[in-house]
Amino acid sequence: MRTDIHPVPLDRAYRLLNHGPVTLVSSAHAGRDDVMAAAWAMPLDFMPPKVVVIIDRSTFTRTLVEASGEFVLNIPSSAQAAAVLAAGSGSGREQTDKIAACGLQRLPAERVGAPRIAGCLGWLECRVLPEPENPRRHDLFIAEVVAAQADARVFRDGRWQFAPEGGPRTLHYVAGGAFLETGRSITVESPR
Amino acid sequence: MRTDIHPVPLDRAYRLLNHGPVTLVSSAHAGRDDVMAAAWAMPLDFMPPKVVVIIDRSTFTRTLVEASGEFVLNIPSSAQAAAVLAAGSGSGREQTDKIAACGLQRLPAERVGAPRIAGCLGWLECRVLPEPENPRRHDLFIAEVVAAQADARVFRDGRWQFAPEGGPRTLHYVAGGAFLETGRSITVESPR
Repeated sequence: MRTDIHPVPLDRAYRLLNHGPVTLVSSAHAGRDDVMAAAWAMPLDFMPPKVVVIIDRSTFTRTLVEASGEFVLNIPSSAQAAAVLAAGSGSGREQTDKIAACGLQRLPAERVGAPRIAGCLGWLECRVLPEPENPRRHDLFIAEVVAAQADARVFRDGRWQFAPEGGPRTLHYVAGGAFLETGRSITVESPR
Repeated sequence: MRTDIHPVPLDRAYRLLNHGPVTLVSSAHAGRDDVMAAAWAMPLDFMPPKVVVIIDRSTFTRTLVEASGEFVLNIPSSAQAAAVLAAGSGSGREQTDKIAACGLQRLPAERVGAPRIAGCLGWLECRVLPEPENPRRHDLFIAEVVAAQADARVFRDGRWQFAPEGGPRTLHYVAGGAFLETGRSITVESPR
């Protein structure tokens, strides 16, 4: 198992999500845990860093997130595409161990009770803000990021730095079993 | 100017945003219009399609969106990266024509008063839901998509279909002048 995980300063945590990758939401409460895929997650603020994620009311993840007030947004690698699709199918409510059933493994988180998912490229440990109206109306959760980490091979100096060819990359979700991998870098000059 | 723009059925409109591209928010009210870059935009619901976008209270776009209750989320092409960076810099409040100053051109929208931005690859015409609490607390706007269109070269049959090599692609924002282009397709089998 790789061990090149390094902390991401909180004021750079939004950068993990800024380019719109698909995420895995992991959660735990009272001896149960779960994982689900979420394409609908994004930053909401820089500092303190906040995120928005949509968690459908039918999911077991929703039950665990509402009970614990915590979750981890894991940013999977393109090598984990099949596991992400599995995590987006079926419910953890009916499975004794959905994380294992998806072919995934747990890593303990630093600041929250939810597990992190091993093999991912970035992690945002989150605590839900107590604003019940948005979950009730829109399945929309706002959370503060209390710790963040990344794989130092691909996220360094506060930003993603993927190898020009090959190597792990993040994923973007299309539909069905279709994903788009994060592609090449483009840099343009500031207009001012 | 290209003319291969086709309508996207409303139940597929979320697919334009699902992979997390950077957007341009265009807006208009009382004879003024504006454009700003927004990386923090995502789908919120399938049907009727809804989106979430963060629009900072300091922007002129915010003034126009609050006055008109409408905006367009334009999904730029990688060829427009410099214009996206320009749209993310400076305010339309101090410019007589920020859209032109960014090197961009207007297209009339079908259902809203805000202009669309020409040369983009997708468009989501949006009407803001009257929920003032989220803008006030979080600069977060929830809107219903009332019309959507895409460039038929890259979005067909309800999904993005980029050429394996070359051709226009969508953009994901990193920071400064750095973007990541949408990369190659990955397809995995459904686990069930």
